Amino acid sequence: MSGAVATIATMRIATLTSGGDCPGLNAVIRAVVRTAAQHGSTVVGYEDGWQGLLEDRRVQLYDDAFIDRILRQGGTILGTGRLHPDAFKAGIDRVKANLADAQIDALIAIGGEGTLKGAKWLHDNGVPVVGVPKTIDNDVDGTDYTFGFDTAVAVATEAIDRLHTTAESHNRVMIVEVMGRHVGWIALHAGMAGGAHEILIPEAPFDIDDVCKRMARRFQLGEKYGIIVVAEGALPKKGTLDVGEREVDQFGHEKFQDISGMIAKELENRLDTDVRTTVLGHTQRGGTPTAFDRVLATRFGVNAAQACLNGDFGKVVALQASHIDLISFDDAVGELKRVPPKFYETAQALFG
Amino acid sequence: MSGAVATIATMRIATLTSGGDCPGLNAVIRAVVRTAAQHGSTVVGYEDGWQGLLEDRRVQLYDDAFIDRILRQGGTILGTGRLHPDAFKAGIDRVKANLADAQIDALIAIGGEGTLKGAKWLHDNGVPVVGVPKTIDNDVDGTDYTFGFDTAVAVATEAIDRLHTTAESHNRVMIVEVMGRHVGWIALHAGMAGGAHEILIPEAPFDIDDVCKRMARRFQLGEKYGIIVVAEGALPKKGTLDVGEREVDQFGHEKFQDISGMIAKELENRLDTDVRTTVLGHTQRGGTPTAFDRVLATRFGVNAAQACLNGDFGKVVALQASHIDLISFDDAVGELKRVPPKFYETAQALFG
Amino acid sequence: MSGAVATIATMRIATLTSGGDCPGLNAVIRAVVRTAAQHGSTVVGYEDGWQGLLEDRRVQLYDDAFIDRILRQGGTILGTGRLHPDAFKAGIDRVKANLADAQIDALIAIGGEGTLKGAKWLHDNGVPVVGVPKTIDNDVDGTDYTFGFDTAVAVATEAIDRLHTTAESHNRVMIVEVMGRHVGWIALHAGMAGGAHEILIPEAPFDIDDVCKRMARRFQLGEKYGIIVVAEGALPKKGTLDVGEREVDQFGHEKFQDISGMIAKELENRLDTDVRTTVLGHTQRGGTPTAFDRVLATRFGVNAAQACLNGDFGKVVALQASHIDLISFDDAVGELKRVPPKFYETAQALFG
Amino acid sequence: MSGAVATIATMRIATLTSGGDCPGLNAVIRAVVRTAAQHGSTVVGYEDGWQGLLEDRRVQLYDDAFIDRILRQGGTILGTGRLHPDAFKAGIDRVKANLADAQIDALIAIGGEGTLKGAKWLHDNGVPVVGVPKTIDNDVDGTDYTFGFDTAVAVATEAIDRLHTTAESHNRVMIVEVMGRHVGWIALHAGMAGGAHEILIPEAPFDIDDVCKRMARRFQLGEKYGIIVVAEGALPKKGTLDVGEREVDQFGHEKFQDISGMIAKELENRLDTDVRTTVLGHTQRGGTPTAFDRVLATRFGVNAAQACLNGDFGKVVALQASHIDLISFDDAVGELKRVPPKFYETAQALFG
Repeated sequence: MSGAVATIATMRIATLTSGGDCPGLNAVIRAVVRTAAQHGSTVVGYEDGWQGLLEDRRVQLYDDAFIDRILRQGGTILGTGRLHPDAFKAGIDRVKANLADAQIDALIAIGGEGTLKGAKWLHDNGVPVVGVPKTIDNDVDGTDYTFGFDTAVAVATEAIDRLHTTAESHNRVMIVEVMGRHVGWIALHAGMAGGAHEILIPEAPFDIDDVCKRMARRFQLGEKYGIIVVAEGALPKKGTLDVGEREVDQFGHEKFQDISGMIAKELENRLDTDVRTTVLGHTQRGGTPTAFDRVLATRFGVNAAQACLNGDFGKVVALQASHIDLISFDDAVGELKRVPPKFYETAQALFG
Repeated sequence: MSGAVATIATMRIATLTSGGDCPGLNAVIRAVVRTAAQHGSTVVGYEDGWQGLLEDRRVQLYDDAFIDRILRQGGTILGTGRLHPDAFKAGIDRVKANLADAQIDALIAIGGEGTLKGAKWLHDNGVPVVGVPKTIDNDVDGTDYTFGFDTAVAVATEAIDRLHTTAESHNRVMIVEVMGRHVGWIALHAGMAGGAHEILIPEAPFDIDDVCKRMARRFQLGEKYGIIVVAEGALPKKGTLDVGEREVDQFGHEKFQDISGMIAKELENRLDTDVRTTVLGHTQRGGTPTAFDRVLATRFGVNAAQACLNGDFGKVVALQASHIDLISFDDAVGELKRVPPKFYETAQALFG
Repeated sequence: MSGAVATIATMRIATLTSGGDCPGLNAVIRAVVRTAAQHGSTVVGYEDGWQGLLEDRRVQLYDDAFIDRILRQGGTILGTGRLHPDAFKAGIDRVKANLADAQIDALIAIGGEGTLKGAKWLHDNGVPVVGVPKTIDNDVDGTDYTFGFDTAVAVATEAIDRLHTTAESHNRVMIVEVMGRHVGWIALHAGMAGGAHEILIPEAPFDIDDVCKRMARRFQLGEKYGIIVVAEGALPKKGTLDVGEREVDQFGHEKFQDISGMIAKELENRLDTDVRTTVLGHTQRGGTPTAFDRVLATRFGVNAAQACLNGDFGKVVALQASHIDLISFDDAVGELKRVPPKFYETAQALFG
Repeated sequence: MSGAVATIATMRIATLTSGGDCPGLNAVIRAVVRTAAQHGSTVVGYEDGWQGLLEDRRVQLYDDAFIDRILRQGGTILGTGRLHPDAFKAGIDRVKANLADAQIDALIAIGGEGTLKGAKWLHDNGVPVVGVPKTIDNDVDGTDYTFGFDTAVAVATEAIDRLHTTAESHNRVMIVEVMGRHVGWIALHAGMAGGAHEILIPEAPFDIDDVCKRMARRFQLGEKYGIIVVAEGALPKKGTLDVGEREVDQFGHEKFQDISGMIAKELENRLDTDVRTTVLGHTQRGGTPTAFDRVLATRFGVNAAQACLNGDFGKVVALQASHIDLISFDDAVGELKRVPPKFYETAQALFG
């Protein structure tokens, strides 16, 4: 269990942010710097994720007014990047040399699944690492929430709120595509919060017939509009809607189809209604974090710094119920955290 | 000039909302109903714009708690629609008969250029009409602002704020496409408010070479990201970027090309930078109006009702400096209000 | 454990909201109505809390457009009130008669500690009751969060964000008093999210000397302003600041002193600095709920309705980690949930 | 008239912010710096208003990433202060010497009525000055709006929106006190935008009997709650409510009574209703500016810098309809801009 700092040691801690940006990254950095400073320790940041560590691009982070103010700021002052794991592994000697040159005692790696796997690999190869999970998608296992997710849901919900009034005034079906390639957490939450009449998520392949039938029944009952929230990775049940094959890129990432456009077309054809699609895109992952995310990111940062100061390496900070724990890398990256069927059923109780 | 009600007459006022929805429509309706009620007059609303007037679909509007609460609500409780002017003109006898049957003394038509032209034509054909200008694009002449515009700018600005942090964290150019097919008011305001590094509007055809050069210079000065705000109707200077011809639909509306995508492609090719495009879409026109728009819409509604009660027909309410005036239909629909060159130059002083 | 509905029974469910209002109450009501409707059951609402049940003031709630739209609306469409437990207990026969007359099969009581105690008493006296915990203060035991709390924190955080810039521009200490008479959850979260330099909560009586010393050290380090977040129930350590005795009203509620004013006076006297106090007040408990609170309230509502339909009475819905459980009344109202020392220490790591 | 820069001159421009802080001050500073930089000119800022000019505390402002980002930031990076005019006038020789030492060619003074009077006096005494009007109260004559006002109205409106739901759920009258000691612009706008049932402003002394009667009539019509927005400087008609005399401080500023508290007491006594008061306070003047205010402040800054570069001194930038003009100091500070009776009557049409 994470806790107050038992062994007060003066340390040089390094940190980096890797993968897609996420509201709250700066709040983590700030919390790490301040916690370290309270114990006479200092913090350096590597720029642009693993790339900066490989190329020894680093900046000293002081516990000053600048760091205090980044709490509210989206993105990451350190920059971020995506480095192919192979390139990273090939550079392990340089990484170790860079850390040694800079007299780094501990590394706090802030990132998603890929980053945490890299961090674990680094730790297994002798570097003292603590991981901070980051994913706007909320799909890291072992932690109830990750920061950034609540902000994404808030942004998407506000957009859905706005689309309701237009949909209603024009008697339209509005399809809102939100982030979520492999999991439907954002769609589920934003859809419930935004009062969607249908929510489609990757965990529950949909039958386009059912979607059309539910919307048709809604119209028969006198309503003249509908809101459908779709995760970008939502998929039809096999054999119900031909969406072709997904392509895979060099990182093993699938290329997703325009699932919203396909659904829109079907609805227009079958229901004789006006359908519009809005893809929320990058606005979901930028800007000032919600209060919830600032608190969570701050707690992650304080606890990660304390883990370093306590020499508690090879762990990942995690929110469990309302306290912060340290879990193993394996518990964090073992499996994607998917929406459980029961939660999806709760949302379905509101459909129609 | 509009003013307090001189001739207190008990009237039956009809109102309708036509064209695209816009935050503030309900605030106008509420203000009309309450002002009328204070003078013992009543209000009916026609559903779905001119269509409802033609088909005699109407609903009585009471000065009650329901109407009080719609102040904050986006869209229009009456619904809206687009009817081809020819269909409308062909139905003039039915329109007149419907108004007579419902014992309507005055009609308040709330809508954009097309609606106001229809209102003027109706007035010229003997129906006592007062117009309330509505356009999210802020392009109605004779009024400093129209309600809905400030909300659209606020929504777009918040989106741009969010995109800044992502662009900066990932060293990217972000192109944000906002509404504005014929005028650049939203792009200009949201771009200035959002600290864009380039703003492209229909009124000032752009040279893609200049855009690329300015962005390249920015990178040379050490910045690693950029925000470009583009009105959907922005156009390249002739001969600088091949965008093909615009098609025209049955209403005479042009179909616009994916101008943001074209600019993104050019930037990626010429600057060797990562470029992403976000199209804000319908979120700009929905949802709760800003305080500014609620006040403006309310003032329009009160003054339109007072104009009816005073028998001051054939006029349009307008904001001039900080007071509300009544202007002629011709002054309102004569010409599109475009961004003046001097204002655009002010924005350019901030570029780079 | 709560779950999908096993025994589908057509029921008449009653609901009421009692105690202080809270964003999310309407989301609970909506979720109850829709879930019931999906199983052919109907819902009536009693007005103004227990008072309405006692006086048989009830209203039928239909699964219609009106109910669908209250999701975003703060407060409670049923009204709320505070009834002295003695008055309530004295009226038990009338309550039972009213429920019998209205053919009510189950009651969902939505409220705070007092309400849940009343609900338990009612259940112990033979009425089939399910409780939904509601407290803006987040102090109900057995549930990780209650709805309304996140909204209160968000509102307070936004206010603190705004006060930062004024404090800094004028070189001032700003004291922000937030809700929390017995627990410091709102102060702790809003203080962490808002980057406060000091957070004072009831759980950790403060020493005014320490507060002044920390602020003085901050000034010595070159900062010229400070933000102190104070829960309204914060208390000085005995013997460190004379705040007199708290009075107690007829409900056993203590009357709280102007603790912020007292701290302001001390700081001004000891530090020769300009200090201003802002009491956030009722804005923290009103208005549209955050997305987080809408989801939580909705889940509570769906699960409470399902519990009724399953005949699972004498229970309270609760959030545990990321799923909803049914806990006993005793687990919910046994003890106030206080801020644990470790969490407060995390916040302290950020002070200064 | 202000315009593009005709005489391009390389200049050293100084700027300062004085009086109460206001959202948009940083946007002005940024616009001044960038516009100057485009013409090869540089900008220095004096700290804490006139005081910094007197004490020669200045900082060079560069056209860099830091300045670019202050657009969104409330308050003023230069700090502000209030200096008694006599102290300022007595220091004129030091002021001139300081400006000469720093080789300043022009001064842009950003502030309210007092600041602009000081700026005029300085200009009359030989210093080339351009004024930028700043007042959250919107009471500077000669300009349709000043920046900061729209943000204050937005913050107050959001608070009123939130208070509505609580007032309604608890059947209460809520009194909301907003800024405005001498003018009622904020109260009028926030009250109209927030759907207040009564708005009390300094320009229209109120009769407490009328206020009570209108609220009583509202209750008779079946409504159970009410929202009253009160400017802090609202005053009863002489002889209608004893509020004592106002005291005057050394700056000639009146000390205002707790007018909201007095009204609350009367309403409680006369109407037998529950009344609560919320004083919004400093949150109205801090934090990120609205899009409207960012645009206005930016336009003011660009035009003030251009006026300097054109040698157009002794002027104040002003918004007139939708363009920016240069007006004389006398036109700006001659008289307070008060709410015109007709505008207040428009609001009254919505009461009840």
